Parts: sequence; structure tokens; C-alpha cells
Amino acid sequence: MGTEGMDEASNMKVVLKHYVSGSAQETDMHLTAGTMKLKAPDDSNAVVVKNLFLSCDHYMIFKMTKHDRYADPYPLGSPITGYGVAKILDSAHPDFAIDELVWGITGWEEYSLISDTTNLIKIEHPDVPLSYYTGILGMPGMTAYVGFYELCAAKKGDHVFISAACGGVGQLLGQFAKLHGCHVVGSAASPEKVDLLKNKYGFDEAFNFKDEPDYNATLKRYFPEGIDIYFDNVGGKMLDAVLLNLRANACVVMCGMITHYHLEQPEGIHNLPLMVNKEARIQGYLAVDYYHLYPKYLETILPLIKASKVVYVEDVADGLENAAKALVRMLSGRNVGKQVVAVNFL
Amino acid sequence: MGTEGMDEASNMKVVLKHYVSGSAQETDMHLTAGTMKLKAPDDSNAVVVKNLFLSCDHYMIFKMTKHDRYADPYPLGSPITGYGVAKILDSAHPDFAIDELVWGITGWEEYSLISDTTNLIKIEHPDVPLSYYTGILGMPGMTAYVGFYELCAAKKGDHVFISAACGGVGQLLGQFAKLHGCHVVGSAASPEKVDLLKNKYGFDEAFNFKDEPDYNATLKRYFPEGIDIYFDNVGGKMLDAVLLNLRANACVVMCGMITHYHLEQPEGIHNLPLMVNKEARIQGYLAVDYYHLYPKYLETILPLIKASKVVYVEDVADGLENAAKALVRMLSGRNVGKQVVAVNFL
Repeated sequence: MGTEGMDEASNMKVVLKHYVSGSAQETDMHLTAGTMKLKAPDDSNAVVVKNLFLSCDHYMIFKMTKHDRYADPYPLGSPITGYGVAKILDSAHPDFAIDELVWGITGWEEYSLISDTTNLIKIEHPDVPLSYYTGILGMPGMTAYVGFYELCAAKKGDHVFISAACGGVGQLLGQFAKLHGCHVVGSAASPEKVDLLKNKYGFDEAFNFKDEPDYNATLKRYFPEGIDIYFDNVGGKMLDAVLLNLRANACVVMCGMITHYHLEQPEGIHNLPLMVNKEARIQGYLAVDYYHLYPKYLETILPLIKASKVVYVEDVADGLENAAKALVRMLSGRNVGKQVVAVNFL
Repeated sequence: MGTEGMDEASNMKVVLKHYVSGSAQETDMHLTAGTMKLKAPDDSNAVVVKNLFLSCDHYMIFKMTKHDRYADPYPLGSPITGYGVAKILDSAHPDFAIDELVWGITGWEEYSLISDTTNLIKIEHPDVPLSYYTGILGMPGMTAYVGFYELCAAKKGDHVFISAACGGVGQLLGQFAKLHGCHVVGSAASPEKVDLLKNKYGFDEAFNFKDEPDYNATLKRYFPEGIDIYFDNVGGKMLDAVLLNLRANACVVMCGMITHYHLEQPEGIHNLPLMVNKEARIQGYLAVDYYHLYPKYLETILPLIKASKVVYVEDVADGLENAAKALVRMLSGRNVGKQVVAVNFL
């Protein structure tokens, strides 16, 4: 590694210029040059990393918005943060050594000093594309795994509905459900995505929600016997329509509610009272609280990836200079597959 | 029993005149005289009962309303039905014998022919007031038991909030939670009820929600550290405010949503997206699907009643002629304690 021993390096960063209201725009961020000491302070537990891949995830919009409803907003003028894959350049932490690969929360910049290594996870299997550790082998993968295998108690033959089904979490949820013998229907935002759902991920059915004026009627058409499990990635009107179509003892696993992240006052859900008679359950969760299961997940998923029993589609933008554009593209649903930014190549 | 061998008896009934829109009125029902053969048809599995106590329960309003959102409406011109305590006068069912006492769904009339005995439960412990089998020892008791002991996974020290806390279910939930070592706060609709909650049922705190213009502020005052468990008997704005005040891994047990039962389009709930980050759960249920636990419940509750470790307050109306008035009174929240109608005395 030519970077070892370097005192200071130039460091490009993606910085939030101002807080977003409404939809995020590329101009809400800018690329700025800085420098960075590639040395972890001796008396710290920090590591210095070179960032390889950055993940565009929906939750980031609420950190770009100045209200603390869901999480602390990004500080203005600093590089935004998110999940990424990185290589250790220097370490003052006993558990991390130079040249090791890790995934976890890092900065949108070339090099980062990571002080909180609590959820920094070592990559022990580099024989798959490293970008997968932002998706199928990272937080979205764990989100799908926990949602499907830990929380929903799916049975063979269950009728499963997934919204935002083409995203990093949705595409995996659908494949897990199919492997489990469920009947799986997904919704997405374009004909291209609907095609992927049916012909690449093996969903039984899929529809473009933008073509559906009446979600209740749509769901009745796809689920004449009702829905057993709904993986909710969008919230809003679709959740309300799902509540009308739940079977007894149904489960709604709330992976995220992306239509709401940027709203101060989210849309009202009117059909919750139906949950009493349907004995239904809604469960919210964060994958991060299940990371102790990560080794178990890898044991499950790595053989499936290697045997092509699970497929995974990425949408990779090249270079930090395209990062803001990629994030905005993903937030507006124009990506196809998990949106990643390749920062540097090894 | 003087009734044995009787061929036909006069039978007063409470009949629904027309479907309710808005709030129920006494004039929506009327008392009408009929006759009844006190003999179960030989080729049936039916029983003929003399009704002793009838239960006024919130779910009845949606059966009085002509929309099938929650349940089948009562047929017009027939006696309304509900939970009650009754004595078997004649039986064509091998499991039920003459003079046995039962509780379950019966008619609002003096005598009923019960064809579906699936959820008719024999009273094996008549050494408590028989009216208790409409409440603490009946469906409301099982609702509280299942909600507290089966669904919410309460821990000692948990902060518990109960709405409609003075009702048949709420008063028990609060006492179960106190016995379990929880900190318990209840809301109710009058100063008299607030007094009962604090001084009779042993709630730590209670408030009259009608005095509270801002439920979010109210809950922040009573739960500065947040709510672990909410037993939701009302839905609506209070649920929305609770969602803002949940702690991590909180649970909302949805026992009923009485503010919504009579609404075609219930009020919107806006704060569900918060459930993701709070990893919260909402669970709907019906006690009837847990009746296999009834013997276990009796083992728990009967010693508590006999040792006065659980108190139970009833509001008993005397006679079928006062039944409609009692039901309307309960539906408008003017009862104090579980509303019962005494039909006949033994």
C-alpha cells in the first residue's frame, strides 16, 4: 500500500450545503477538497480508512432534513455519512489491522477517520464483489434477513406482498420468500423494475404502482384470499390499502416508510382499527440491533450467492464526483437495483 | 326447576329497530314481547337457557351499525346478542345438562335458544357473584389476561399506559400491571373515574383526557422517560400521541379502538413511521382465540379475587326494561365500572 506512511493526503468530500425541504436535489450537496492525516491518533480507538464503496440508502433523506423526527440531521459543512466498504490504512484499535477490509458507517469522502468502531464489521469473505457489503452482505441484507427469518414467521404457502420490491432490501425479501415456498407479489415504480421482479428475481407477480389508481382494488386482484405478510418499505396509502386486505393473524413488517421520510406530518393511516379483528401485528425494527446474527446470515447467504440461488442487482455510479447525483437518483426511485457509489478501485 | 316441562313461556326481548348512524340512542332499540318454547329440538345440539346477566360491551356499537367493516350487523327485528350469564333449562347437547350455569354469547331476552355452543363456557365456580362472568371472569377478563400475560411481555418497572382505563378490561389491565411491578397510568372520561383509578384500582397516576388539550404534552408529563407498553382501548388521537412517546422496543396492545367503532372512515394515524426507529410493535387480538387458556386464567384470578388482591367494580342495571338505556349509557362513557344488566334473579 502506497498510502502507508503518508502524512497527509488530499481528500475529496461530499458535503451537505443546506438542509433539504421537499425532495433532495444534487445542488443540496457539493464536492469539496480537503486534506486528511492518514494516521489514527495513538490515544484513540480510531481507525483511518480508504473508502471503496458508498451505499445510497433511503434513511439518508431524513438526515438531510432539519427535523429530528427520525434521527440527528447531518451537520452542515461536514461530509455526509452512510454505510460503506473500506480498507484500513491505519489503526489505533486492537481489533483492526492495516489492510483489513471492513463495512459499516463511514464518510462520503476518499479517506475517513472512524472513531466509533462499534458497528464496523470485518470482511472475512472478499471472494465476492466487495460492493455487495453495502447491500446483500451489508445492512440491507441483514434488514431482509431479520425481517424474513426473525420477525415475520412465514410459512410455506403464505401470501407475501413487498413494496419498493426492487430496492436493496425488497429484492432479497422476495427471493427469501420464494425460497421458503411463499406466493410473492411486489410493487415497484417502473415497467423496467416490474420486469426485473418477475423475470430476474422470480416474483410470482409484480405491478407498477404508478399505473394503479386504487390500491385496494389492485391488492384484491393480486390477493383474492388476502395478505399474510406485508414487508412495508413505503408506508402511506399503500399500507392503508394493505390493512384492508390482511388475512387473520397477518404480520406487517415495517422495514422503512420511504414515502414519509421527508414529511413533517406524514399521511394518516385510517385502517388500523381493523387490526383488532384480524389479530394482526405491525413490527418495526432496525437491522443494526440484530448484527449479532450476521455470522449466521453469512452462513446462509454466501452459499446461495455462490450457487446463484439468489441474484443481486446493483446500480453502481463511478466516482465521488457522481455520488450526489446517484443519491438523488436513488431517492427519486430512478435507480435499478441497489445504488452504490464506487469511490476508489483497489 | 319450575320451568322444566313448560311448553311455552312469554319472552321479553330487546330488539334493534333500525341501524344506528352516529351515536346510539335508547330509541334505536325497543322492548317487545314474544313467546318461546323452552325445549331444545331433539335433533339439534342446541340448548335453551334462562338469561341471568347481560354484558354491555363496546364492540356492540358496530353490530348496531349497518356496515360490515368490523363484523356482521345485528339483523333488524331480532333480539340483539352479546355476552351473558345463563342457566341451562333444556339441552340437546351432550356436554350441557339442565341447571348448569354457562357464560358466552346469548340473546338480549329472557330465554334464548343457543344453537352454536362452541364458545359457551361452563361456570364451575359459582361461589363468586355470577355477574363477574360477564366481566372479570368472562371475555373482558380474558382480554386483559391475554393482553397482559400473553402479548405484551411486560417487565417489572415498565412504564404502562392504559386508555379507557376504568372499563371492564382497563381496570384489570391496570391491576395486573401493578401486581407485576409496573408503573401504571390510566386515562378516563370523568373525575369520578380518575378517582377510582387512583384510589380503588391502585394506578400510580390517572387523568381525565377531557381536561387535556394536547395529549402529547400530557403524555410527556406522565411519562418523561417514555412509554414501554400501551394498552389501547380507544385508537385515534391518543394512539397518535402515544406513538410519539414510545420507548425503544415498545409494544402497543390493541384491545379495541372504541373511538372508531362507529366511524366509516376512522381518523388518520400519522406517527406510524416512528415505529421503525423505535423498533415498536402493535398487536391486535381477540380474546376468543385464547379461550383454551381460560382454565389457566381462573387458576390465577380466582385466588386474587378471593384474597381481595384484585378489585372489580360493576355498574348493574336492573331488568331488561333498562337494558337499552344501560347500553347507551356505557357507549357514551357514563357508566362507572363494568356495565351489566341483571335480567332475572335466581
